[in-house]
Amino acid sequence: MKLFFGEIHDNTAILSEEESHHFSKVLRGNEGDKIHVTDGKGNLAEIEITSISKKAVEGNILNLKTDFEKKNYYLHVAIAPTKTMERLEFFLEKATEIGIDEITFLQTFHSERKNIKLERIEKIVQAATKQSLKAYLPKVNDLTKFNDFIKTNFNDFTKCIAHCEDDIEKTPLRIVLSENPQKILILIGPEGDFSRDEILTAEENNFTGISLGQQRFRTETAALQAVFATDWELK
Amino acid sequence: MKLFFGEIHDNTAILSEEESHHFSKVLRGNEGDKIHVTDGKGNLAEIEITSISKKAVEGNILNLKTDFEKKNYYLHVAIAPTKTMERLEFFLEKATEIGIDEITFLQTFHSERKNIKLERIEKIVQAATKQSLKAYLPKVNDLTKFNDFIKTNFNDFTKCIAHCEDDIEKTPLRIVLSENPQKILILIGPEGDFSRDEILTAEENNFTGISLGQQRFRTETAALQAVFATDWELK
Repeated sequence: MKLFFGEIHDNTAILSEEESHHFSKVLRGNEGDKIHVTDGKGNLAEIEITSISKKAVEGNILNLKTDFEKKNYYLHVAIAPTKTMERLEFFLEKATEIGIDEITFLQTFHSERKNIKLERIEKIVQAATKQSLKAYLPKVNDLTKFNDFIKTNFNDFTKCIAHCEDDIEKTPLRIVLSENPQKILILIGPEGDFSRDEILTAEENNFTGISLGQQRFRTETAALQAVFATDWELK
Repeated sequence: MKLFFGEIHDNTAILSEEESHHFSKVLRGNEGDKIHVTDGKGNLAEIEITSISKKAVEGNILNLKTDFEKKNYYLHVAIAPTKTMERLEFFLEKATEIGIDEITFLQTFHSERKNIKLERIEKIVQAATKQSLKAYLPKVNDLTKFNDFIKTNFNDFTKCIAHCEDDIEKTPLRIVLSENPQKILILIGPEGDFSRDEILTAEENNFTGISLGQQRFRTETAALQAVFATDWELK
């Protein structure tokens, strides 16, 4: 099964410009070919190609699945980007494969990285979505200042901040997940952790301090652990 | 805390030749410095450096921890190397951080990769062990033919083969882990999965076919999932 991004209408679907180019020029697809298209919002259509131009490949819908493999929870991870982009990119790919709905990049007190390449990151998330045949495309948000982010109103979310500060009480993630949250937001700090001030400010804003276990994890490993554990416990 | 590999004797410890060089030439360490040394077999010593030469940095043991953070299970993952070495290397680093005891590389029917750089892989595992401050160094075994490997006698091990073959019955990994195995061996197939013959031969050799969930995982994601789940359920 080969999956493409595009718009899905009543009886037809149109691949995005980039995907149209990929289908016609790179894969040299033809009229009559059958492929799958998703809008990244849960719809998955099998289509038969009816017309091909450089900018728009179009087809008739043969069958349509809505809410395709919809998870029964919503996971938002906000992460301080790692110094090495490669590590962050690997996290994004794995998180997309395992199951994540929204990703925000945090600029924190100890962050070494002050910028990210959003376009490149979106491409990685899109590729992982297609490769793992998912019909939901995770939402990617740009770098946001920690203090602005935690003051955002996250209605209905169980809000957590993972940290390693010894003398601030933490709840094991396992306990948080056992309460079966429908929407969960987990903050993952940079190399060097969140600052004490950040942790306390988060708690003032109704975040629960959590621990991911006894091990010393790198940033991207901690984030992966959070994604994996949420999937394992809530799916 | 800075961790080095070396030999640990009754009252003294000697860094390995490579670590001695690293300590004296790269880090420009001095006599009197206090560092931590592990033999990779569970011993962790804090030492005070007493003598420095290019090939052997030596110190007196100030305190010694045995069975340092010993896990209560033994996990052996045998994996068909991925086409892209980078993916395999990332898996090795993450698995070491989370917890793995032994890794074997499998040459399978659908394997595209026929060789691995064992020395490079050992270096990655060593670096991850040091970085995550562990006193147990995972054992790394060279590429082994699938049919030879599954006929090896794995006494006391719960033996599993993860696969995606629809019409061969599979037990969820969750069920296998709920029986609290002390020693567990999990085989992870290549892109394109194990062949039907391989799965059947494994079952003849008392391997249980397992599923890791409904998702379609890349090889290294499946392996990571197995390591995470084992840690999450058994630790």
